[in-house]
Amino acid sequence: MNDARLSRLREQMPELLLKTDPADLEFYGRDWTRRWQPAPLAIAFPADSAAVQAIVRWAVREQVGLVPSGGRTGLSGGAVAARGELVLSFERMNRVLDFDPVDRTLTVQPGLVLESLQAAALQHGLIYPVDFAARGSCSIGGNIATNAGGIRVIRYGNTREWIAGLKVVTGSGELLDLNRGLIKNSSGYDLRQLLIGAEGTLGLVVEATVRLTDPPPPSNVMVFAVPAMEALMEVFAACRRRLSLSAFEFFTDRALEHVLRHGAQNPFAQISPFYLVAEFDAGSEAHEAAALGVFEECLDQGWVNDGVISQSSAQAAALWRLREGITESLAALKPYKNDISVRISQIPRFMQAMREIFEREYPDYDIVWFGHIGDGNLHINVIRPDGVGDEAFIAECERVTALLSATLARFGGSISAEHGIGLVKKKYLEGTRSAAEIAVMRGIRQVLDPHGILNPGKVFDVEA
Amino acid sequence: MNDARLSRLREQMPELLLKTDPADLEFYGRDWTRRWQPAPLAIAFPADSAAVQAIVRWAVREQVGLVPSGGRTGLSGGAVAARGELVLSFERMNRVLDFDPVDRTLTVQPGLVLESLQAAALQHGLIYPVDFAARGSCSIGGNIATNAGGIRVIRYGNTREWIAGLKVVTGSGELLDLNRGLIKNSSGYDLRQLLIGAEGTLGLVVEATVRLTDPPPPSNVMVFAVPAMEALMEVFAACRRRLSLSAFEFFTDRALEHVLRHGAQNPFAQISPFYLVAEFDAGSEAHEAAALGVFEECLDQGWVNDGVISQSSAQAAALWRLREGITESLAALKPYKNDISVRISQIPRFMQAMREIFEREYPDYDIVWFGHIGDGNLHINVIRPDGVGDEAFIAECERVTALLSATLARFGGSISAEHGIGLVKKKYLEGTRSAAEIAVMRGIRQVLDPHGILNPGKVFDVEA
Repeated sequence: MNDARLSRLREQMPELLLKTDPADLEFYGRDWTRRWQPAPLAIAFPADSAAVQAIVRWAVREQVGLVPSGGRTGLSGGAVAARGELVLSFERMNRVLDFDPVDRTLTVQPGLVLESLQAAALQHGLIYPVDFAARGSCSIGGNIATNAGGIRVIRYGNTREWIAGLKVVTGSGELLDLNRGLIKNSSGYDLRQLLIGAEGTLGLVVEATVRLTDPPPPSNVMVFAVPAMEALMEVFAACRRRLSLSAFEFFTDRALEHVLRHGAQNPFAQISPFYLVAEFDAGSEAHEAAALGVFEECLDQGWVNDGVISQSSAQAAALWRLREGITESLAALKPYKNDISVRISQIPRFMQAMREIFEREYPDYDIVWFGHIGDGNLHINVIRPDGVGDEAFIAECERVTALLSATLARFGGSISAEHGIGLVKKKYLEGTRSAAEIAVMRGIRQVLDPHGILNPGKVFDVEA
Repeated sequence: MNDARLSRLREQMPELLLKTDPADLEFYGRDWTRRWQPAPLAIAFPADSAAVQAIVRWAVREQVGLVPSGGRTGLSGGAVAARGELVLSFERMNRVLDFDPVDRTLTVQPGLVLESLQAAALQHGLIYPVDFAARGSCSIGGNIATNAGGIRVIRYGNTREWIAGLKVVTGSGELLDLNRGLIKNSSGYDLRQLLIGAEGTLGLVVEATVRLTDPPPPSNVMVFAVPAMEALMEVFAACRRRLSLSAFEFFTDRALEHVLRHGAQNPFAQISPFYLVAEFDAGSEAHEAAALGVFEECLDQGWVNDGVISQSSAQAAALWRLREGITESLAALKPYKNDISVRISQIPRFMQAMREIFEREYPDYDIVWFGHIGDGNLHINVIRPDGVGDEAFIAECERVTALLSATLARFGGSISAEHGIGLVKKKYLEGTRSAAEIAVMRGIRQVLDPHGILNPGKVFDVEA
């Protein structure tokens, strides 16, 4: 490829690995969304933060947008390069740099895959507790960019809580060394926290120091079959009252059908409309009695009509698969994904309101609900009916997403709980953030990316 | 007082309580620092967020600085009004607005005293776990402004971790409703986190939704007498390995002398140079055996030469007083205060470097060390020798603080762990934050406070 800007980049950084093969442009130009045709200028693979700074300076001179790229497992198009951007892949910056046993921190490069980070922590007898199904592919840099949440937020919080230090390169090419692993630091604005969840629009993460913690006690998994939506949060309250929860998840009969078709085992003889997965501390007789007590209470109250509790770690994994296998089981169907949150106190009324909207607007659609109901986060996947084209399907979904967004605004919820805004939810940001908030965000983006080169077009447009 | 600007404020807001008595100006114009002569224009007591917005709009028109004011227990001059500012006291905005049992949150006004907030949580069988000695006077708004830490950060983190929602009024008078109590929200930049710790320079907190949690298990307190500085972190490692710590604090023989003079009881027959306070989960025989085991290990290794463990909650309180009473015992002496942090792994080398500096620079000064050593936060108080005037004393302290700041820069530490920068540490900010970081902070401040009316002159100067 003989683009003059690329030639100059090659000249200025002869050691930089660049790829421009059409297959690479296609592969690195997209994430797990499939709505945009990848069209990056090239893919750059910097080896260190100095190279990232040099690329940023080149991008400023040439006015080329930069799309930071990790495992590209994102579901909001945050890593899509469809407009001639340079994809800045962190694949070669994927090392563990340091472990400190006193601070109990790992310092890592942004391209490190989450599962590798978790394994590195375990080697030292500690855990990095943020976890979700994409662990084998997603990178810690992407986790930071979206403030990834996942399945154990109820106990451990989001990625935000586990980042003790961040090195980032701003849109001016400055390297900022933020917080440096300190536990307490009240010396000016916490730019580290500002960068987390900014989807690469305020700076490029080139290094992160993550906190680790002690492994949890042994746990059990219990799956409840729930006959009525109204009972879901009653079961949650009962579990939270008597168990020490590490996860509390939800899915529907529609989700179960998809995941069973993909090889999961159904532990129940009968189909129920709703299912809940509770993971909780176990390992003692008192724990077992509490779990049994919760189950009996839920049965007595009519909140559940069946349940199963894991008797081994293999069975726990099989039960988890019912919930964690859903996204994969739907992938080939290219569902339209919603990733919303409300306060957990609002879940029952919000679900009722949404169900009414879906029954009215999508009477014939297959709607798959699942998610992290214990922290107020629901995933609502809409399956494309046979015979409906991609564009017509997305247009129809976006019509309903506008209703969803209005309903979320009424409930004080969020259009993106953990996937980020990216490109997919950009037009709905105004349902979650006020005009005044967006104006502040725009001003902040101008400060950190004055030349408009960091993931341009993502989250919101720079011009009002 | 017949200032024309005040007259217009009175005209525009006839219902607003304003005070201009000299005694009030003196009282509300200062915090726990005593270096600046209070000189506010007046004190305003808004009753709600609409009044705060109206005051901001007035301040913009009149170009009057606003100093937000809670319990004024700050130690960095963040609440000092010495340059004709209007003090905006939140004393009348001190109510609990809502409790939600499902979300487990309290929604409160910023003037609520921390101890009242803690009591309100306990009424519902829950706790707000951020805690420190100023609890009876400080307000939650001030806690948020400094990201207050305190004595249980080692278990519960800083204020930052407990704020689920913030309503703030910006320097343009806009009311932002940030995060609204959501647990998961990846919809654009987290302005809530940016505002926390910004010392009132980016917005005025008018409402906060704080997370609550279950009460902790019963705890015990153990105080160790430690013969050598080198042993301090060995004791910490031993405690962390075998106990479930909720606090790990430190003080010196100098601190003990002051606190004993103020009525605390000495549990030890002999004086040691260093003391450690560990608070840890108790209540079972296994817990007791672990505590005894730790103590024996520390004795065997020669890390401690005496120790005492609480046998009752009264005794635990008495032992806590040895540590928590220090600040009060020093107050009348108007010490020069340092509040620094380094990573806990750096504590031994940092303390050694500082001791060398102090022995060289302050051979005759009384230096009182104490603090939250388990999270890397040390308070170093310098006592004014008899016969040295205030100004000469501060000048001498600042000369050494410049050395402290340079040493912190070398260790990657922070010039303020939990007190904030305010006025007192402003000139040392550059030791903790790079020029590029300060430029970004300056740009962000310009976005949120374009007219320069929010706590002007605090943290850093707006003009470079």
